[in-house]
Amino acid sequence: MARRSDHSREELREMALSAAEDIVVEQGYEGLSARKVAAAIGYTVGTLYLVFENLDDLILHINARTLDRLHAHMTASQTHCNDASDCLLQLGQVYIRFADEDPHRWAMVFEHRFSGDQVVPAWYQEKIARMFALVEEGLEPLTGSRTRDEVTQASRALWGGVHGICILALAGNLGVAGVDSVQDLTQTLIINYLKGFTGNVSLQ
Amino acid sequence: MARRSDHSREELREMALSAAEDIVVEQGYEGLSARKVAAAIGYTVGTLYLVFENLDDLILHINARTLDRLHAHMTASQTHCNDASDCLLQLGQVYIRFADEDPHRWAMVFEHRFSGDQVVPAWYQEKIARMFALVEEGLEPLTGSRTRDEVTQASRALWGGVHGICILALAGNLGVAGVDSVQDLTQTLIINYLKGFTGNVSLQ
Repeated sequence: MARRSDHSREELREMALSAAEDIVVEQGYEGLSARKVAAAIGYTVGTLYLVFENLDDLILHINARTLDRLHAHMTASQTHCNDASDCLLQLGQVYIRFADEDPHRWAMVFEHRFSGDQVVPAWYQEKIARMFALVEEGLEPLTGSRTRDEVTQASRALWGGVHGICILALAGNLGVAGVDSVQDLTQTLIINYLKGFTGNVSLQ
Repeated sequence: MARRSDHSREELREMALSAAEDIVVEQGYEGLSARKVAAAIGYTVGTLYLVFENLDDLILHINARTLDRLHAHMTASQTHCNDASDCLLQLGQVYIRFADEDPHRWAMVFEHRFSGDQVVPAWYQEKIARMFALVEEGLEPLTGSRTRDEVTQASRALWGGVHGICILALAGNLGVAGVDSVQDLTQTLIINYLKGFTGNVSLQ
């Protein structure tokens, strides 16, 4: 077993996060425990808790990294889309693909519930807000005379909608098989919503 | 501790389901274990496994009862709605209210993943199909020349969408507080989708 002095605090954090991510990828969220992470990096649980407050704190940091990767994929999709509705459809597609390729880490972002008295820190909330901001920016060219509040609401409805299809479909609850069908379903949700939102039923 | 002969097999099943439901309502899905259920009804875990194959089987039966109650609420809402879009909006409202009032049992239906080799039985799949059927029936008056497949797809997109808003909002991930705001968000999703789906942007 490695001695505490073998690694800096920063190295320990990185090792623990990586090991924890591997456990989540392989065994799902339910498979994660402080004991397993400590064993994987060759330290004690006591040492792990010198660099993370508790398991919730460790999970928060894994989720933050997942949100960063998702955000990077979503941002990248916006550089080669054709028009406003195509850009929004791309956001939806990237979201579905990400969830399909990395289902356990993706699910942990949304399934983990923090202990009752734990406040979600502002830096983490900011990562969630950034995702909405991408959808709001995508909606911008279609908003016409819509108020700020209406655009905010539309971004939440769209994100929630895509998320729901994603979560139900990937869990096998929507009676659709394969990621292509999920993509089709998401497309119809987005495009029909946009037709309604803009009043332009010829949107493609 | 009660003796095995104190209750019939049917009584034991009912006692175990009720006790398990109480545990889920109070402690959430994560709080459920065969040991706790057995303790609550005053029998051994061995006896519990005489009436349920395993914990998955017990969960499946709790989820079936949850789906039955949800279906009953949704059906009831369809007897006093005004027109097609109002009826669909009511379905969404009932869904959100149900999830808000009984969050743990509702979540267990969607969050529980069955062990790899377990086949979801047909009688359970039927309960899921009944929910879609309600949405499809609601869509019926609005479908115009849409094909059967398009209506099926629309029912899945709408249910998935409402589910996603529900799950994100109730977990605090949509930046909206209170069940009223969630209802508003759901309404905009449904009504904008219907406008797009029907091509009738003056739908209310």
